[in-house]
Amino acid sequence: MRYTQVFPKTKREAPKDAVAVNHKLLVRGGYIDQLMTGSWTLLPLGWRVVTKINNIIREELDAIGCLEMLMPLMHPKEIWNETGRWDGADAIMYKIQDINSKKQYALSFTHEEIVMDLLRKHISSYKDLPVAIYHFSTKFRNEARPQGGILRGREFLMKDLYSAHTTNEDMKQFYEKVSQAYVKVFERIGFEVYVTEAAGGVFTENKTREFQVVAEAGEDTTFICDSCRWCANKEIFQDTNSKIQKCEKCGNEMRSERTIEVGNIFPFGDKKYAEMMKVGFTDKDGVKKLVHFASYGIGVSRVMGTAVEVWNDGKGIIWPEAIAPFRAHLVGLKDSTDIYKRLTEAGIEVLYDDTNRGAGEKFADADLLGMPVRLVVSERLGDKLEYKKRNEDKAEILSFEEILTRLKG
Amino acid sequence: MRYTQVFPKTKREAPKDAVAVNHKLLVRGGYIDQLMTGSWTLLPLGWRVVTKINNIIREELDAIGCLEMLMPLMHPKEIWNETGRWDGADAIMYKIQDINSKKQYALSFTHEEIVMDLLRKHISSYKDLPVAIYHFSTKFRNEARPQGGILRGREFLMKDLYSAHTTNEDMKQFYEKVSQAYVKVFERIGFEVYVTEAAGGVFTENKTREFQVVAEAGEDTTFICDSCRWCANKEIFQDTNSKIQKCEKCGNEMRSERTIEVGNIFPFGDKKYAEMMKVGFTDKDGVKKLVHFASYGIGVSRVMGTAVEVWNDGKGIIWPEAIAPFRAHLVGLKDSTDIYKRLTEAGIEVLYDDTNRGAGEKFADADLLGMPVRLVVSERLGDKLEYKKRNEDKAEILSFEEILTRLKG
Repeated sequence: MRYTQVFPKTKREAPKDAVAVNHKLLVRGGYIDQLMTGSWTLLPLGWRVVTKINNIIREELDAIGCLEMLMPLMHPKEIWNETGRWDGADAIMYKIQDINSKKQYALSFTHEEIVMDLLRKHISSYKDLPVAIYHFSTKFRNEARPQGGILRGREFLMKDLYSAHTTNEDMKQFYEKVSQAYVKVFERIGFEVYVTEAAGGVFTENKTREFQVVAEAGEDTTFICDSCRWCANKEIFQDTNSKIQKCEKCGNEMRSERTIEVGNIFPFGDKKYAEMMKVGFTDKDGVKKLVHFASYGIGVSRVMGTAVEVWNDGKGIIWPEAIAPFRAHLVGLKDSTDIYKRLTEAGIEVLYDDTNRGAGEKFADADLLGMPVRLVVSERLGDKLEYKKRNEDKAEILSFEEILTRLKG
Repeated sequence: MRYTQVFPKTKREAPKDAVAVNHKLLVRGGYIDQLMTGSWTLLPLGWRVVTKINNIIREELDAIGCLEMLMPLMHPKEIWNETGRWDGADAIMYKIQDINSKKQYALSFTHEEIVMDLLRKHISSYKDLPVAIYHFSTKFRNEARPQGGILRGREFLMKDLYSAHTTNEDMKQFYEKVSQAYVKVFERIGFEVYVTEAAGGVFTENKTREFQVVAEAGEDTTFICDSCRWCANKEIFQDTNSKIQKCEKCGNEMRSERTIEVGNIFPFGDKKYAEMMKVGFTDKDGVKKLVHFASYGIGVSRVMGTAVEVWNDGKGIIWPEAIAPFRAHLVGLKDSTDIYKRLTEAGIEVLYDDTNRGAGEKFADADLLGMPVRLVVSERLGDKLEYKKRNEDKAEILSFEEILTRLKG
């Protein structure tokens, strides 16, 4: 893409109220824009990042047999009343009233109740199970203090998956499969991810599993056992002020880190949702049973913010290849249309700075925007190009063919 | 995909309240499910259709330089007040109040105001223009009587595009480009589409352009001139009861048809939105001017419904290739795992009925679900397969290689 066609252009200054690094850099880079507190437009560059995150998730979930769909966002009050969450999730859920009709609805902060309503309409026999369905959709959460840029918003994008099974064993097996798929997703992006034991919040009284990434901006504290790799959210320990905890699995001392929760998975079994909403099936022997249910979430816009928190320097973002909006940033210090075309035709995603600005501004933009590779074309270099990785200082002078080989590798 | 893994399975009976063909067939086929009046889950098969529609739109819009993004759905009242549409679009817009905080918001029924707010924050010079940004996102419309299955819902999926330009001429040129891109989109799907002059409703007092498809279930009446191809929505004629109208362009008599509006485009210029929200730029001579603005919508879930209205018979849906969830429906009257694998490995999207049901039920499902090609594997046929197009009666007995050639062709 030509930079002259990108909307909007980069900014020199971060918003005055910005504290978190992702807030500053994503706004300056033109990745996101704030509509109101906790509510962000994912601008074209940001949307490219989120699309890549979504595609990685989609590939890993489809690989274990999950089906993509799309559920509505405005929900009938009655369904949320069935589990008591119309009032029980009050602190986080937007309960709204249509000003004209006075009718009351919930805006989706999650979809357990809605999925369960769907399942009970369509499942009757054990032959209809298991089911694993997911969607990428907007979530609304009435956060008292949205903060951390796009780490905690009132409206954001989430991938949520729901599965239902005939037995608890089957559910547990699938729960492990999803857990492994999540680890793959986060590792493909480039994160070092800690699978962490945690409490269930407004979702369940069971223990749940969170996927945590170490970052200063994180709101969570995770205890990590480097010996056996067992991790636990601080909230599940009795003495929450202690900075040292012993590992429950191997007894070694755990280190404590500030972390960002990028995913979480909830094993509900046949309690709560299945029980209260009467979601059942008839088994092989004609006996009526409740389904065993679980849900699984990844905050995809939060993942983008986390990536920026983890990979940045004083100059800007340093995207990992897997989710970078473009593979390379082509800085044209003379007309580079030909190079741009040849790279594009070779299937390389290139952001081509075709503006008439000076070299300094162009280099600053390349650093701010953070594509994995910067290419420079200039009179001085003749037919060759300068090749520099965003996360290295070393620059090399290479031929077009050498660069193509590297970018395709 | 194996049919045993599909959720949910087909149903013999349509919902009792279903009148529209798309309502009956999409529900029976497991493409959609109603959460509440006017609100539908796009189930996995339905989501596959919508994804294909979205990808066609994406390709055609990207080809003319549009940028994809994602804007929020819950909007500040203040912004809608700037154009008077907080009250002016009352009949259609959900104005909501958070039951807890008492704060008031609009739920997006369109995004003109939100885009304009974004533009005025990021545009200052003529160099920042033109801009053409779009998203696929949920729309909420407070329809008094949602009807026609997914043709008119209270919550649905839309692609909306917005463009801003330095001059009216530039806007008009781009407006024509989008108009042509829309025609390409609808023709790629397989529709005969009529580009129709219409009124602007709650959007504008200018004439607008609608994209209409002839179908009995349509709520619109379109006058079509077969001589010069000029078309007009009945609503713009003075004598709205007349069944005959003369073409304003060539004077010939126009025929009247029931149609479904699948897209519409609005040329606002620098009036209304730009004026009221003060969205301007500085031109080459340092003069401050207002941007020339236009918006463009395609109801993507409605497009799916329209396809079903246009292509069906007594037995079920007849998907056109471009948006069929699968290219072929493989009916296995004996184990066909090998054929299924070979087709899949060859890149053919196949729905494989691997259930233990009888031939009659399987054939009925294939007709109901409507994939373009049905393949049958049975003992009787030996190594060969039966190949039958959904829209033809003729069945042929062919080798696997012959079938592969046809499916790839």
